[in-house]
Amino acid sequence: MRSMSQFRCSRSRIWMDDNMSDVQFFEGVEKLLEIWFSTNDNNSKHADLRKIPRSRLESLLKIVRCEIISFCSNDQIDAYVLSLSYFDCCYCLVLLQLMFKSKCSIVDFNWCKCTESSMFISKRRFILKTCGTTTPLLCLQPLLLLVEQYAGFTDVEDVFYSRKNYKRPDLQAAPHRDFYQEVTLLDAIFPHGSAYCLGSMNRDCWYLYTLNPPRTNALSSETEPDPDQTLEILMTDLDPDVMSIFTREECLNAAEATKKSGIDKIVPNMVIDDYLFEPCGYSMNGVTKSGCYMTIHITPEPEFSYVSFETNITATSYREIVNKVIETFQPGKFMVTVFTNKTSAAVGAPKEIQNLTEIGSWTRRDMQHICFKNYDLTYAFYSKFPS
Amino acid sequence: MRSMSQFRCSRSRIWMDDNMSDVQFFEGVEKLLEIWFSTNDNNSKHADLRKIPRSRLESLLKIVRCEIISFCSNDQIDAYVLSLSYFDCCYCLVLLQLMFKSKCSIVDFNWCKCTESSMFISKRRFILKTCGTTTPLLCLQPLLLLVEQYAGFTDVEDVFYSRKNYKRPDLQAAPHRDFYQEVTLLDAIFPHGSAYCLGSMNRDCWYLYTLNPPRTNALSSETEPDPDQTLEILMTDLDPDVMSIFTREECLNAAEATKKSGIDKIVPNMVIDDYLFEPCGYSMNGVTKSGCYMTIHITPEPEFSYVSFETNITATSYREIVNKVIETFQPGKFMVTVFTNKTSAAVGAPKEIQNLTEIGSWTRRDMQHICFKNYDLTYAFYSKFPS
Repeated sequence: MRSMSQFRCSRSRIWMDDNMSDVQFFEGVEKLLEIWFSTNDNNSKHADLRKIPRSRLESLLKIVRCEIISFCSNDQIDAYVLSLSYFDCCYCLVLLQLMFKSKCSIVDFNWCKCTESSMFISKRRFILKTCGTTTPLLCLQPLLLLVEQYAGFTDVEDVFYSRKNYKRPDLQAAPHRDFYQEVTLLDAIFPHGSAYCLGSMNRDCWYLYTLNPPRTNALSSETEPDPDQTLEILMTDLDPDVMSIFTREECLNAAEATKKSGIDKIVPNMVIDDYLFEPCGYSMNGVTKSGCYMTIHITPEPEFSYVSFETNITATSYREIVNKVIETFQPGKFMVTVFTNKTSAAVGAPKEIQNLTEIGSWTRRDMQHICFKNYDLTYAFYSKFPS
Repeated sequence: MRSMSQFRCSRSRIWMDDNMSDVQFFEGVEKLLEIWFSTNDNNSKHADLRKIPRSRLESLLKIVRCEIISFCSNDQIDAYVLSLSYFDCCYCLVLLQLMFKSKCSIVDFNWCKCTESSMFISKRRFILKTCGTTTPLLCLQPLLLLVEQYAGFTDVEDVFYSRKNYKRPDLQAAPHRDFYQEVTLLDAIFPHGSAYCLGSMNRDCWYLYTLNPPRTNALSSETEPDPDQTLEILMTDLDPDVMSIFTREECLNAAEATKKSGIDKIVPNMVIDDYLFEPCGYSMNGVTKSGCYMTIHITPEPEFSYVSFETNITATSYREIVNKVIETFQPGKFMVTVFTNKTSAAVGAPKEIQNLTEIGSWTRRDMQHICFKNYDLTYAFYSKFPS
């Protein structure tokens, strides 16, 4: 393995701030949008988000500044690996400038495919998870129009927009610089949205916008919801030795990085679609036959390392997965969020997290629990001791 | 009783915004500061916050824009009712302008004693709760100096600064316009402070800053903490018929308002020090022989009605007190917060609140639970159905 100092100097992706001065930085923190749709008539059998044509999805992703670079699917779910489109990537723009200045050929440069992002589309659930300076909330209105036009759904049943606090909010594009701006955009679309901040607002925290309609006093005529659960683990300050796996210097391709890191062993029986970016960075989507997913995105640069793990697999306990994830990536700090609804098999998982004041050499710094109308949410933040 | 429209037109307190245009508004929402002190030597027996001379406290309160208007005490606790000082009160300033313009005498006007506020000082706990446009965080550094000079404490053991979101943050003075500004000031003083927002950031929410030092892995050499608990109920959109009790039109004096409203029956065995403001508004402090306190502050104007209730009385359940408070004041919406530490008799009270999805005709809209190092906190928000 090459020394980390070489890795640091030669391979950091370049980002540019508003003044077009070079800043060696990449924002790994993703914006995560999950929307559930439903119908208010009897057409629900035929309604399906996967009826939206690929060309329309590609147009939609242009608004977000993304493009599809890999795809896998089964009967239950379509899973896309995304990247930033060339001319929205500041690293590539810098290379382009250099190319013109130095009169080199376009083939002399290693064009970046930065921005580790994913999209999952199943019958009635749409998930878009994008990092860097992407703008997923700008695609919300166009998405709702596409869903109406092609998919046959009439209603938005639930919305979850969430993200960790950024390392460099000043480098984001509107409306993503500030959570209040994001909330203003969401409030203009959804009548019953509520915005939350979990964790320490002046340290590490996690923002969430979700529909949380008032409870009705009427005797419940509502049908039981489909079982649903999501586990997310957002990690920072990761072990540089682990992170170096996710560079083109250390691994020839994504499959090698997946195996070498142990990612393939975290959740068994996943069909994996992985991608190793140039010069570094990694994304993977995994799907099961039953339509469950997992996704991992890695920003390996030591100065701003970030890894996210997310899955909705059905389990009565997430303890083992949490252990495997943090043992695999060795973060200095991480936050865990667990969403469960009342019909989920993981209904006991939040309580389990609430009781974990220590996990190995990580100590809990923060723990919060929110009770929504349809979901329970537990948030916990851990750091290696001493912090 | 006079009609509410008359009450509205003739008795609203006047506030002025930055452009010195008249705005009929008063911010009932309080800023609540609670600090616990300790000593790191053997002088703790002699250390006592009540050693700070009254003249020094009065100087301190000038920084906050408050002055003492009533006082009661026993062996355990000193309780002060506070009000805004004359020349910091915009209502009084408007009257002063009118007086000069109309060449009337000073005795022709009902000078306001607005700003319902309280201060409680016991051996090692300092509480300051002030509404309107007071600036309690500005007195923090001078307070710490006074404590060092007169009271004999060496350490700040814990800090709690909290408030509901304001109705009109734009009318506040720095650093209180924005929670991030307040946090910046607090972070400059305390090394391990953490800031939280509970409830819906885009609707009704409650901000808290507290010390939440990292847990140590060392086997606990710490002594058990003194039992402590605090119940707070912050109410808005109150019943105008109830609110009219707290005006000089309806009641001659504070004692009449206390009895007529039923405040004297909420917590028995309290020695009550109450104050009915001119033209309206109400404050009361209650203390028990054992040093427990309760305090109620009322902004009765229908356009921006607000009532706060707070107590630290020892009880295994707060259900009965919560019921009495909301039955007494009939709020449209209210939030409940319960702090308990592990040695408190009320250690089961948070769980009790967590299980209350309905209280009479009020339905829960939000519920959150935070686990701090030394305290558990439960927050719940209720509104009358339909909202």
